[in-house]
Amino acid sequence: MDFTLNVLGTASAKPSADRFSSAHVLNVRGRLILIDCAEGTQIGMAKMKLSYQRVDWICISHIHGDHIFGLPGLLSTMGLYGRSNPIKIFGPKALQGMINYFINYHSEGLPFEIDFTPISCTEPTEICAEKNFRIYAFPLKHRVETYGYLIRENDPGLNVKKNAIEKYSLSLAEIAAVKRGEDIYRSAEKAKAWNQWLNEEQVLKNEELSYKPYDGRSYAYCSDTMPFPELAQWVKGVDLLYHESTYLKEMEKDAAKRYHSTAEQAAKCAKEAAVGKLLLGHYSSRVPHRSMFLDEAKAIFEQSYIAKDGDVHNISYIRKNY
Amino acid sequence: MDFTLNVLGTASAKPSADRFSSAHVLNVRGRLILIDCAEGTQIGMAKMKLSYQRVDWICISHIHGDHIFGLPGLLSTMGLYGRSNPIKIFGPKALQGMINYFINYHSEGLPFEIDFTPISCTEPTEICAEKNFRIYAFPLKHRVETYGYLIRENDPGLNVKKNAIEKYSLSLAEIAAVKRGEDIYRSAEKAKAWNQWLNEEQVLKNEELSYKPYDGRSYAYCSDTMPFPELAQWVKGVDLLYHESTYLKEMEKDAAKRYHSTAEQAAKCAKEAAVGKLLLGHYSSRVPHRSMFLDEAKAIFEQSYIAKDGDVHNISYIRKNY
Repeated sequence: MDFTLNVLGTASAKPSADRFSSAHVLNVRGRLILIDCAEGTQIGMAKMKLSYQRVDWICISHIHGDHIFGLPGLLSTMGLYGRSNPIKIFGPKALQGMINYFINYHSEGLPFEIDFTPISCTEPTEICAEKNFRIYAFPLKHRVETYGYLIRENDPGLNVKKNAIEKYSLSLAEIAAVKRGEDIYRSAEKAKAWNQWLNEEQVLKNEELSYKPYDGRSYAYCSDTMPFPELAQWVKGVDLLYHESTYLKEMEKDAAKRYHSTAEQAAKCAKEAAVGKLLLGHYSSRVPHRSMFLDEAKAIFEQSYIAKDGDVHNISYIRKNY
Repeated sequence: MDFTLNVLGTASAKPSADRFSSAHVLNVRGRLILIDCAEGTQIGMAKMKLSYQRVDWICISHIHGDHIFGLPGLLSTMGLYGRSNPIKIFGPKALQGMINYFINYHSEGLPFEIDFTPISCTEPTEICAEKNFRIYAFPLKHRVETYGYLIRENDPGLNVKKNAIEKYSLSLAEIAAVKRGEDIYRSAEKAKAWNQWLNEEQVLKNEELSYKPYDGRSYAYCSDTMPFPELAQWVKGVDLLYHESTYLKEMEKDAAKRYHSTAEQAAKCAKEAAVGKLLLGHYSSRVPHRSMFLDEAKAIFEQSYIAKDGDVHNISYIRKNY
């Protein structure tokens, strides 16, 4: 059951020969969510063998070109491959400009519908609820209206503890009720039938009988943004946090001026939010070695990683057994 | 003195992991002309170490996405690198839609001017005259308004034949006049001063005294188009003809339906136009091996070549001496 992040681009505004700009694909159990769509996204997806047709949701952070210029090409190619399912696109309302341009000039014969939902929120807001996951948007602090995204896998259904089945001789009907999250009520008669020493009505609490086999996984995407106090609360405890780190600490003034973050600031957010792992990206072309971002972040938050184009980060779950 | 074609993309509508869509850069003595600008053009240019800032002219054939979706990104990146020279863009009038979208949403702080000239012509028409070359546009036959481009290096100035200088003892003033293309007039007196046996006025014809040190080179770009009778005349004798070959002969019906050409049709045009070399490209992803296009074309026109992403085709001249 995949919950896997595919990194398609790690450059900031200027792509280079070997580094595309921002685009991430999160695979949630085989369905793909594309977050940002820089120029070359469709080519990056082809390189990583990610199916265009399995992308049903596109979340756009903001309308700067290094986050959206791949969208017209990707939509066209989806059409050429005969896509028929509507594509759901989320993003700031200004994205309507690109959508309108695309529809006016490039949608003749397009065999699927573009379903664009403009986002407008001042705190984390659920924008999409699917069988296996939910998507939340939250505002970031950048030069233009910008949103981050949090994808949270739905918690799985309850399992029944094996030892509880034995201990209480749970019937099939009772097991089904426990899976539904219910407590088990036994009349005095039933209680006695199960244990001759008992002869009074009895309630077996659900939490004693059931357990979640694993916790739903989560991924948050924060690009582009300068630091602000609420952010760590909004991404609290996610398994994987992608946080832009355009600059290094020594370039903090540039970062502030351009509403970006340093690697240190990203790491401080990750530490405060107590996330599982921090992934850095959106690197300025002025920094010669990616390892410089990593060193700076690791000094604050040990579980820091640098993203590279083509990387796959699997978020595994820990299966529990009782 | 470069006259060099750089091939950035050879795919047709669908780019792939290793093949971008249409974009060519012609280097004429160090100045760059970009013809078509598919998604990834700026990345391809970075790979080929072609300077964004040396591109002053962009010629767009038509507004299908696989020929223009790289334009917003390239213009943005030119701005980020501090370009100040205006960029001249030529293309069908419908390109105004993309230009307007870009200006409305992405031109804030752009440090250079976009100078778009919509083209409308029914036969070859000069659209740009520079010191070293001229650009001509001519209509192609595709599903939407489409233009091909012909870039012709200006012929060099005249040289004076060494043996003529000796034979006629040409003075510095006479040499300058010959270089200007003039005939040399000598009065009876002057003629006698040069050769005592002569005593009558004399005219030395320019063509006996001068020669072109080389012929101006030429390149024509024809994508996308179905065959039509006038085309071979319009590209007559060019040194290098790029002609799309989306399909093979066995797919001729598909080609006609979609207003494209087969490799055989491209080769027939090259043969009729008696060009120096034919370069094929814009390959359908349905054809498994590029060599299949080449084999088909070579059977008609021996000097056929297949374009590959990243190829550089130098068009050299033959220097003459007298």
